[in-house]
Amino acid sequence: MVVGEITQERDLIIIGGGPGGYNAAIRAAQLGLEVTLVEKADIGGVCLNKGCIPSKVYTHSASKLDDMKNFSSLGIETSKPMMHIDQLQEYKNSVVENLRKGVEALCKANKVEVLSGTASFLTEDKIGVEEGHNFDVYKFKHAIIATGSTPISPENISIDNTRVFNSHSIFDLKEIPEHLVVYGSDYIALEIAMSFHHFGAKVSFVLDEQKDSFEFDDSINRELQRILKKAKIKLYKKHELLAQSVTESEISLTLHNDKGDEVSVTGTHLFVSYKNQPNLNSLGIDRLKMEVNEDGFIITDNQARTSIGNIFAIGDVTEGKQLAVKAIKQGKVAAEAIAGQTPEVDLTFIPTVVHTTPPIATVGLTEAEAKEAGHNVKVSQFSLSGNGYATILGKKDGFAKIVTDQDTEVIVGVHVIGAGAVELITSGSIALEMVAREEDMTFPLYPHPSINEGLLEAVEALKGQAIHLPPTKQK
Amino acid sequence: MVVGEITQERDLIIIGGGPGGYNAAIRAAQLGLEVTLVEKADIGGVCLNKGCIPSKVYTHSASKLDDMKNFSSLGIETSKPMMHIDQLQEYKNSVVENLRKGVEALCKANKVEVLSGTASFLTEDKIGVEEGHNFDVYKFKHAIIATGSTPISPENISIDNTRVFNSHSIFDLKEIPEHLVVYGSDYIALEIAMSFHHFGAKVSFVLDEQKDSFEFDDSINRELQRILKKAKIKLYKKHELLAQSVTESEISLTLHNDKGDEVSVTGTHLFVSYKNQPNLNSLGIDRLKMEVNEDGFIITDNQARTSIGNIFAIGDVTEGKQLAVKAIKQGKVAAEAIAGQTPEVDLTFIPTVVHTTPPIATVGLTEAEAKEAGHNVKVSQFSLSGNGYATILGKKDGFAKIVTDQDTEVIVGVHVIGAGAVELITSGSIALEMVAREEDMTFPLYPHPSINEGLLEAVEALKGQAIHLPPTKQK
Repeated sequence: MVVGEITQERDLIIIGGGPGGYNAAIRAAQLGLEVTLVEKADIGGVCLNKGCIPSKVYTHSASKLDDMKNFSSLGIETSKPMMHIDQLQEYKNSVVENLRKGVEALCKANKVEVLSGTASFLTEDKIGVEEGHNFDVYKFKHAIIATGSTPISPENISIDNTRVFNSHSIFDLKEIPEHLVVYGSDYIALEIAMSFHHFGAKVSFVLDEQKDSFEFDDSINRELQRILKKAKIKLYKKHELLAQSVTESEISLTLHNDKGDEVSVTGTHLFVSYKNQPNLNSLGIDRLKMEVNEDGFIITDNQARTSIGNIFAIGDVTEGKQLAVKAIKQGKVAAEAIAGQTPEVDLTFIPTVVHTTPPIATVGLTEAEAKEAGHNVKVSQFSLSGNGYATILGKKDGFAKIVTDQDTEVIVGVHVIGAGAVELITSGSIALEMVAREEDMTFPLYPHPSINEGLLEAVEALKGQAIHLPPTKQK
Repeated sequence: MVVGEITQERDLIIIGGGPGGYNAAIRAAQLGLEVTLVEKADIGGVCLNKGCIPSKVYTHSASKLDDMKNFSSLGIETSKPMMHIDQLQEYKNSVVENLRKGVEALCKANKVEVLSGTASFLTEDKIGVEEGHNFDVYKFKHAIIATGSTPISPENISIDNTRVFNSHSIFDLKEIPEHLVVYGSDYIALEIAMSFHHFGAKVSFVLDEQKDSFEFDDSINRELQRILKKAKIKLYKKHELLAQSVTESEISLTLHNDKGDEVSVTGTHLFVSYKNQPNLNSLGIDRLKMEVNEDGFIITDNQARTSIGNIFAIGDVTEGKQLAVKAIKQGKVAAEAIAGQTPEVDLTFIPTVVHTTPPIATVGLTEAEAKEAGHNVKVSQFSLSGNGYATILGKKDGFAKIVTDQDTEVIVGVHVIGAGAVELITSGSIALEMVAREEDMTFPLYPHPSINEGLLEAVEALKGQAIHLPPTKQK
């Protein structure tokens, strides 16, 4: 190894070029800082290259296949679709490349110095960057750790990328499984299950860790289960995973159901989305005595600052939900704090989005969480079957649900499953952040006809005043 | 004619069962009033039966045809689509019937008395309702006029419903025109032009009244014109309409361009969306000396009350924009006022939505309006070509534009053209109504990847801090 002769000096070094890292880098550059970004693989990180973006390409294709069910009503005659997963993968690769090049160009335009290599802390103000035979040492004023996470599997499952896949490998699977078994419960497990269902695979879904449901508001969980059932996706709840076996043509999971009976689920392929561990092993933060929680995630304050004052940490390496939206926000806030501003990241109202068919988007407290938090809870729900625009779309599954504090009429949660949920959820986010009361959401005008009116009517239903719900169905 | 022997008494009589009327009726019933709704044709009015709903069925079909351009990228192999407008019309009819029956059932469930017939005021507290040979007289405490409007044509165009159509007849046209000429500039002209373009017609578009553009924010107007051009829809601006001629197989418009040269536009069919006149002719409001403006529209206060204290008017018969969203809001407010509440309708932030491909949705002031209103205006714009989710969708046309007051940082206008615009616009409406400042829109978390992030980046661009815009393109 060739160790650089001199220690180079840098203002801000960001380790990891995923969404958190590159958003931090560009925001810091916008604020006048000189920024160095160290990435050992591809700019864009797991989210862009192997996670959220590829998954959305798949779910988008799946939703277009789903749309075709209504084509003949809409006067559109066409042949039964054939799915070519190789073409979809080419498109996925071109989208990923296109976006990655875009981010690289933005880094360049913002004069962000990009170093290729693996970084590790030497002291609280020095890191080494190893690339091939070179090892360069940099002294920094500030650093941001944005190294992300890596999927891990349950003990008794091993990923072979031939029959058994995780999120890093599933998007390279060159065939549509005859029978895909999904083990997990998170957004990517749901997106994979729904995508391959639409692509023509038989899908079975085993909830991980003996869960008895997904982790949304109970009403969403129920609707989602109804939708999975309608799609003939069999759901295994409260089953303990005992063993996995793989042959040349099959995979099989051995489970115990909640009565202790042995159940076997056999398919042709297995997809596992279990947990992600923070990428901290080779980073040397133990050397720095940086505070981590019991699961090994870095503890940060509301400016994404670690226990070491000049080092920040963002995204999947930190405590809490592992979502790109969190990494992006923390990244911007860290950059702003380093630039001398006084920003704050508040993850209370982090939106969760799943591109199932129909999509799910929620923000704020579930009904159960609101009760647990001590609110005098009032809820209401408006089914999209009562929404004119959903009728036009032929997409009447789903609803909007509102959770409020009865005493203050402040809205504390917005939960949508149905067409347009993702785009609509930002109405909820803005309302929650602005401490909107019911009337703040009923006063504005909602375009007609639109799915948006479903959100309005959900709020109106709190007072028994949804127009398109019969009086008996309203409190 | 058989005149009813006795004058019957009613609390609240609503004349007209369109979106304004039926929303008013149901809201009034929800608040404990006894409600009588008089409708001479179909419940749901023009919007449901002949206007916005049918138009959205057409635009939805058109958008699905447009989606198919990306199918092969998405791995979906299918044959070239054939468009069957008769099937689409069947679907349109079934949607309309389904929705109308839904509204009828809701009226029933809310114990709204529905009378079939034509109403006219006899005095300030009496109306007659004529149905066939019967004429019944009703004394009322309150009345709401919700009779809507009827499309009219320019002097030199006559609608024959064979070659020349307006919005009441175009949705029954049984063929796809070889060459459709559209005369107008409003949302329905745009929706018809775009729909038939996707259905395979050649489309030419003549702006009415010698307009030189559409009536959105200038940036939207430009993007829309670019999109029309890309769709090979020829746009005639600043042309004066001189004459129309119709043969058995052709229609032709004779125009003068702005240089005074004669221009002829010939097609196989003509669609006209010009103006709508209030349906007040047989209503007898002149007898009541009700105040109307110079164009004959009823003047109302911010509770939708006319100059006669116990009579309210809502929707297209009143001054201002002729949009269902206005009628619905005014209807609810009128009902609440009559029930003794103190509601208010504020139409400042009325959303305008057009289901072109891509859709347009705007709320609040345009840049020009904001300047005229005396704001120290600052604007920013974020192109969807920089949005990751738009890239996945293959829908990179369009942008989000924000108009703010520089001195207060209060947002005064949100303008979106692009995928997801309609669902996204309610974020803008809520923000505007809550007097959001820039930071109220940058503080919340936006799901990743999503079109929603385009809205965020448009706001961030106000300070030169959109992540996905190079520094040179931001101020």
